[in-house]
Amino acid sequence: MVSHTGGGPSLLRRINSAAVLRALRAAGPPCSLTDLARATGLSRPTLEGVLEGLADSGLVAETGAAEAAGERRPGRPARRFRFRAEAGRLLGIEIGSRRVSAVLADLGGRRLGTAALDVATRATAEERLAGARAVAGELLARHGGAAGELRAIGVGSPGIVAADGSVELCAALPGWTGLPLGERLGAAFGCPVLVENDANAAVLAERWVGAAAGADDVVMVLAGLSPGAGSLIGGRLHRGHRGAAGEIGALHLLGRQARPERLLSVSGDPLDPLDEQAVTRVLAAARGGDRRAAAAVDRFVERLVHDVAALVLALDPELVVVGGWAAGLDGLVGPLRQELRRYCLRTPRVVASALGGGAVATGALRLALDRIEGELFAVGGGSGPR
Amino acid sequence: MVSHTGGGPSLLRRINSAAVLRALRAAGPPCSLTDLARATGLSRPTLEGVLEGLADSGLVAETGAAEAAGERRPGRPARRFRFRAEAGRLLGIEIGSRRVSAVLADLGGRRLGTAALDVATRATAEERLAGARAVAGELLARHGGAAGELRAIGVGSPGIVAADGSVELCAALPGWTGLPLGERLGAAFGCPVLVENDANAAVLAERWVGAAAGADDVVMVLAGLSPGAGSLIGGRLHRGHRGAAGEIGALHLLGRQARPERLLSVSGDPLDPLDEQAVTRVLAAARGGDRRAAAAVDRFVERLVHDVAALVLALDPELVVVGGWAAGLDGLVGPLRQELRRYCLRTPRVVASALGGGAVATGALRLALDRIEGELFAVGGGSGPR
Repeated sequence: MVSHTGGGPSLLRRINSAAVLRALRAAGPPCSLTDLARATGLSRPTLEGVLEGLADSGLVAETGAAEAAGERRPGRPARRFRFRAEAGRLLGIEIGSRRVSAVLADLGGRRLGTAALDVATRATAEERLAGARAVAGELLARHGGAAGELRAIGVGSPGIVAADGSVELCAALPGWTGLPLGERLGAAFGCPVLVENDANAAVLAERWVGAAAGADDVVMVLAGLSPGAGSLIGGRLHRGHRGAAGEIGALHLLGRQARPERLLSVSGDPLDPLDEQAVTRVLAAARGGDRRAAAAVDRFVERLVHDVAALVLALDPELVVVGGWAAGLDGLVGPLRQELRRYCLRTPRVVASALGGGAVATGALRLALDRIEGELFAVGGGSGPR
Repeated sequence: MVSHTGGGPSLLRRINSAAVLRALRAAGPPCSLTDLARATGLSRPTLEGVLEGLADSGLVAETGAAEAAGERRPGRPARRFRFRAEAGRLLGIEIGSRRVSAVLADLGGRRLGTAALDVATRATAEERLAGARAVAGELLARHGGAAGELRAIGVGSPGIVAADGSVELCAALPGWTGLPLGERLGAAFGCPVLVENDANAAVLAERWVGAAAGADDVVMVLAGLSPGAGSLIGGRLHRGHRGAAGEIGALHLLGRQARPERLLSVSGDPLDPLDEQAVTRVLAAARGGDRRAAAAVDRFVERLVHDVAALVLALDPELVVVGGWAAGLDGLVGPLRQELRRYCLRTPRVVASALGGGAVATGALRLALDRIEGELFAVGGGSGPR
């Protein structure tokens, strides 16, 4: 628990502060002391003390009488207070093979803007980290923020991520394995950094504001040359015993099947596994009527269906969300539904990602929001899927 | 909550009874009122009232002074009490393709005996139910119990089991799909019946007293012509959204691979999928040096390894337990370990079932024990993996 009221507040004071912040945020419009007393059960003198501390920390503002919905009564106007979501910034970053992108939000999770930067698939780890700093800086500058206003950052990245935010293993990004990613970005930005596997971040995003809203048992597949999956079980992220759950990139080895980069090849030579743009060219050619490209895409879709079916048989989710660039494949969801009916005793719903290329960064933002909610509102409360 | 003290005891009385039973069971040797007052925080008059009710219900006995460890002090000997685990019986039953087996235990989970009965793989549902009644009757007769002493029964069976104990879908047992299994056995035995998928029951058993003791993230594979898997995630059974998690019998369809009954065929004609004895003959021939049989077993093992690898990639468990009749295949665990290292970024431990053919019935017993622990000890307590 980080102190937001200065001078080492007591546990009771922190509990009271969290209760007041929760009440103010839940209310929406500014609250009077009477409203707050009713919502929190605190006495007026206690409330006044807590609100003073929260105002000092910038998290609460007293609104003028003019702001207070125009109601006029005789005597002194009632004091009204609101949560200052603008008191800090949260950032969600995706660091991917070809792109670094980010979304900036206020402390209430309201999006302020997005930014993205292309990177070379063969870019070094340092170049990718510089890209992350650049998109963050651009967003803060564009929305009038200072780096010091960042309260938490979430990051989604391919690979197996350890609890300390370092990358244990990642075949998709050069130099990524072993990188202390959370520590490096934490040092650069001076705020807590939460690192998560990209598919795990994506499934959190789809449940928060996407195609999986209201679903508790979800498999999200990020399709690509290195496919990955993220799963919610009972509304919670299933990371697995060593954080490797859903790392289905090796499924193609089962039954000695061809690798994705060979399936998608038109020439017969395998695609460069780090060159996702080669995939874009094949997909475009297939859409353009090239029959060899169309056959390659068919082979790839068949394999994707097999991978997803294995996940569905293992986990029995209620919903499968398909994202990554395969979400852009025409008519993928239909064949997937049809094939799953062949393989599975109980067939889940199958939908395309609602967030598309924004899913990972949005999920990373959700991680940052969970963190700040844990800090500001958690005593006796808590929220979010983690 | 079932009343064990007669006359509709109050909630407070039930809470106190549960606390006293927990303390008596935890203590092992008989307890004095002083011991119980210390363990429960209840006053002596309250304790005396609770103990009287528990003695009336048969769950607690007052031991004679002679029983009390030979300690002699001046004055009236202290009254001592013990939990009467013998006050009731619990039964775990496996209803399988070729066999119905059962294990009888007391209310403390101590095993009193086992019994089994062969059934034809083509036996009807009624014949299998009659088999279950027969093994239960034999066990109760052998151990001097009456059917009325049964407090709970757990049942493990292939297929997808609904929350109400009916079989939603089962390809392995003729006439099993749609059977209200829990209701039928409950009517026969007059006690609660908990029905669970066989692989799910087996993984509970291996964690309770088998190869998965102390492990929280476990995949258990019951190998056979209709393979199934049961998983623990964070120490809890993962049933999936519709109870179909781990129903990997369709994995062979992925990549258009051959069905297990064709893989294991020596002649080239597929085995009868309901004839597990044909499998036994192939395995025996392979052990006897028949090269075609050995090649068939190799094909089957390779497929089993692929199925398990798909589960491991999806779930990332810490431990894989291999059971079913494949646990009897010589040297299965070694190749499985080796192949998993090829496929998986993080390789779990792989071990053979410690309970062998007894895993499913033992897991079913664990379900019955969980149920009775829920009834007797649950208020403010609770235990077991469910």
